[in-house]
Amino acid sequence: MSGSLEETSSAPGTRTIGQYLIDRLTELGVGHMFGIPGDYILTFFKLVEESPIEMVVTTNELAAGYAADAYARLKGIGVACVTYAVGGFSLTNALACAYAEKSPVVVISGAPGLRENKRNVLLHHMVGPSTTQLAVFEHLTVASCVLDDPLTAFREVDRVLNACLRHKRPVYIEIPRDRVTMTPIHPHSPLVEAPISDSDELREATGEALAMLWSSKSPVILAGIELNRFKLADSVLRFAEKHKIPIASTLLSKSVIRERHPLYVGVYQAAMGRPQVTKFVEESDCVLMLGAMLTDVDTGIFTHKLDQNRVIFATSESVQIRYHHYQGILLSDFVSKLCDASLPNYARTIPKDSNPISEPWEAKRDEAITVRRLFQKVNAILGEKVTVIADPGDALFGAADLAVLDTAEFLGSAFYATLGWAVPASIGAQRAHPEHRPIVLVGDGAFQMTGMELGTTRRGGFNPIVIVLNNKGYLTERFLLEGKFNDIPDWKYHKLPEVIGTGIGFEVRTEGELDRALSEALENTESFSLLNVHLAQTDFSPGLKRLGEGLSKRV
Amino acid sequence: MSGSLEETSSAPGTRTIGQYLIDRLTELGVGHMFGIPGDYILTFFKLVEESPIEMVVTTNELAAGYAADAYARLKGIGVACVTYAVGGFSLTNALACAYAEKSPVVVISGAPGLRENKRNVLLHHMVGPSTTQLAVFEHLTVASCVLDDPLTAFREVDRVLNACLRHKRPVYIEIPRDRVTMTPIHPHSPLVEAPISDSDELREATGEALAMLWSSKSPVILAGIELNRFKLADSVLRFAEKHKIPIASTLLSKSVIRERHPLYVGVYQAAMGRPQVTKFVEESDCVLMLGAMLTDVDTGIFTHKLDQNRVIFATSESVQIRYHHYQGILLSDFVSKLCDASLPNYARTIPKDSNPISEPWEAKRDEAITVRRLFQKVNAILGEKVTVIADPGDALFGAADLAVLDTAEFLGSAFYATLGWAVPASIGAQRAHPEHRPIVLVGDGAFQMTGMELGTTRRGGFNPIVIVLNNKGYLTERFLLEGKFNDIPDWKYHKLPEVIGTGIGFEVRTEGELDRALSEALENTESFSLLNVHLAQTDFSPGLKRLGEGLSKRV
Repeated sequence: MSGSLEETSSAPGTRTIGQYLIDRLTELGVGHMFGIPGDYILTFFKLVEESPIEMVVTTNELAAGYAADAYARLKGIGVACVTYAVGGFSLTNALACAYAEKSPVVVISGAPGLRENKRNVLLHHMVGPSTTQLAVFEHLTVASCVLDDPLTAFREVDRVLNACLRHKRPVYIEIPRDRVTMTPIHPHSPLVEAPISDSDELREATGEALAMLWSSKSPVILAGIELNRFKLADSVLRFAEKHKIPIASTLLSKSVIRERHPLYVGVYQAAMGRPQVTKFVEESDCVLMLGAMLTDVDTGIFTHKLDQNRVIFATSESVQIRYHHYQGILLSDFVSKLCDASLPNYARTIPKDSNPISEPWEAKRDEAITVRRLFQKVNAILGEKVTVIADPGDALFGAADLAVLDTAEFLGSAFYATLGWAVPASIGAQRAHPEHRPIVLVGDGAFQMTGMELGTTRRGGFNPIVIVLNNKGYLTERFLLEGKFNDIPDWKYHKLPEVIGTGIGFEVRTEGELDRALSEALENTESFSLLNVHLAQTDFSPGLKRLGEGLSKRV
Repeated sequence: MSGSLEETSSAPGTRTIGQYLIDRLTELGVGHMFGIPGDYILTFFKLVEESPIEMVVTTNELAAGYAADAYARLKGIGVACVTYAVGGFSLTNALACAYAEKSPVVVISGAPGLRENKRNVLLHHMVGPSTTQLAVFEHLTVASCVLDDPLTAFREVDRVLNACLRHKRPVYIEIPRDRVTMTPIHPHSPLVEAPISDSDELREATGEALAMLWSSKSPVILAGIELNRFKLADSVLRFAEKHKIPIASTLLSKSVIRERHPLYVGVYQAAMGRPQVTKFVEESDCVLMLGAMLTDVDTGIFTHKLDQNRVIFATSESVQIRYHHYQGILLSDFVSKLCDASLPNYARTIPKDSNPISEPWEAKRDEAITVRRLFQKVNAILGEKVTVIADPGDALFGAADLAVLDTAEFLGSAFYATLGWAVPASIGAQRAHPEHRPIVLVGDGAFQMTGMELGTTRRGGFNPIVIVLNNKGYLTERFLLEGKFNDIPDWKYHKLPEVIGTGIGFEVRTEGELDRALSEALENTESFSLLNVHLAQTDFSPGLKRLGEGLSKRV
């Protein structure tokens, strides 16, 4: 596809490189950054402190990266701000996650000043040549730059931020500490990119897609994660409503469509999903996949049975119809053409789904709590203004069945599947949507990785409810291959509030205890609540059960 | 330099790729690995479980990397074992540290099997092409390989391990999960590298160096970290004793020479060091630098005044005499030639040093504890079989003045300076030297990053004494530029044992409390002890005071 570059009319001035970067990010909606100070980035931290942006100092850089990622998923852009090397290399995994799952995260890293960084000089934090960090991040970003020259720095900021917004993937901005306060050599006006589709490709592809839809009796939409990233979910929903086309989501895109919407079918996961949902999607005579990624998780480890002759697969990277591709079409233009088209009213009947956790909850007070019942209870308390954040593992597989109420109320690392994502993500999510309360579902192994990020809630404005699924081990691995390496020491997670100095902890073994703890947690809006839920080592969710059954059927 | 490759006579057989890797590492002295399981590495974990090697499962991969690094510093090789991407990218910072500070760490990473990893297939944990992780690690290692072919895999293991041992820097071994149990196509004998020096270069360089030493009246040895890495410290000490040449160390190499040895001068840090040590080294008419790295930390931010015309600077990478270099000389051969040479008896008098923390300790019971007094007390309790592990920041600057008793009893990330290194490092250190007890000095900011690694002590055999210097902030940054980003929430660190389920915690505000806490900690040999030592926000160590004074004199 081609693109045009528009010079906007903002007045040139003598803003410094650092200030320009802050201003551009503010214009894009950044109200918070996440990071850890360090000497190479201190000057920039001071500039941020003097700006309208709040710097949320996390416990470590990996957590800052996860928080920025969650913030980006909700706000359209997120920023992690770190010092050179010790900071940057500590968040590579968060950036890899953002890259894999298409989250527009901007990493701003300090660096040694050009004046101090001479040949053969070993400055603290350096790893080989000073370009090492840039070289590493080039593999994990869609654009990167070093703001080492006031002639090019302003243009470079524009280029890199445009790439971030266009691809919804991470970018890397390195700023040597002695360049932060430099001013432009020439006046600079921000350069905003407005990419456009190739009109011939768009016409042909839309024509083909509409012809397939016209000849279809029972189409279905598979709404992928890019509908969230490119803010197209509302348009697609209106399109679906206009023609009464049912919509399924993937696990990665769960909640991109309101799950209690009458056209919503459920989370499609092939053999790993609920049978009714799988059957409904796979029996459709046309599958309109919009912004989806065909990952192993989202296809139930490639058990999906979707006849490619009946698939229209549009993403930000290409539009594929049956077996051919169009490379020059913007997803937004494709969706827009669909919205404008005239199509039949399909009015498919969506079968009543037997969600294993949707029965009304009534506690059997002294019964030991099971995984299934835990998810049933969580499902029962889901209300408005709640964001469910699920960590990979059974917390995520089980959460697939939760019926969240509104859009963008479910977050999970459902493709990259990085353990320990959820608690730090809740920090970013609550700064992005301060009026939404996070409910975090996290396994004990994952919680041990990053759970101390709850310490950051002391900075105010956070009240997540964190539910630790404590089965003393890496459950999904036990499932595959048992060994003592799957055992995890049984911490008293509910005592963490005593260490951190805020929050309320609960130890839960029975359904009655779960009821009481969640009631108190919902009432405690001033701080985090943590439920240490003891579960049997071999107990697991309906979602994981389906995965096992689906895989065994496949073999 | 050239090198010869010797085929050893170990019998070829049908060992699998995974088993061969384990066997080679065992032969090199690896008794423990550090890691986290994950599905792509599970088969290998199971093989390790069935081997004599103990797999220490840490709380997260970064900690596994730090632990393997500390283990490598003490044992000559260390191994971190992780799953693909989510595991590998989580420890890049530990590997960067090992690269910068020359620590021979082997990373073994699982990967998707070749049979499942087809074109355009999105497998969980993948970030772009499946080669992304290799591409990243190539920047942080001296050799790397993917064991994807049983024809080459065995040879590749040899090549990569040889590079690790030769350069004492990290290497990366990726093993697709369906290759772990494959057997060789042809018989394979381990290939052990025996690099040798260029004899002409060695003769000329040694001749020059000895001539300089002969014409010197007051030489000094600056013993660098490579003497530890290449196990040359004993030879150099015998050389020094033979000719009565005084020896200083750097902060990075502190304890490479026993600090209570009569020839030991102290830690040389130029303007940042103790004045007597700086004066003594800089007044020497010949400085024999062996295996040192001229970093900003070790040169007191480049305040060192060493006349290059009087410097012999030998490292594993080159021998530099005055202004010219020799590139083909092994450090071990150069040291060996010095040891064999005939030289005068120099018998320089080492001035009595006024170490600010070496006075005998007597508690003023109700006095608030200060940083200086804390270090004085720690100095007073240092005994045999103690490893001091200092985290970067004032914990490290202050620890520079500690007089540790034996060699290899001080560990710190004194060049790469990565916060949060010390607690996980203590896990590796104690597995490497089980009879040595770690005393960990760590700031509150650093402790919040990785301190939960104390949870791993529940796996048995660990009893570190962890002293948290709790000044509620990033002190060394406050020193440079104040801002609220330097504030750190005041956790009740001493209550962590209640969460982890082992250990003893102490809260310390006065000298009397410090005395009591350390007495109890020394008696508690069964679990970790944690001292939460409250310090004034603006208090700092004599070492950091000298840094400030040194820098202000320089400006």
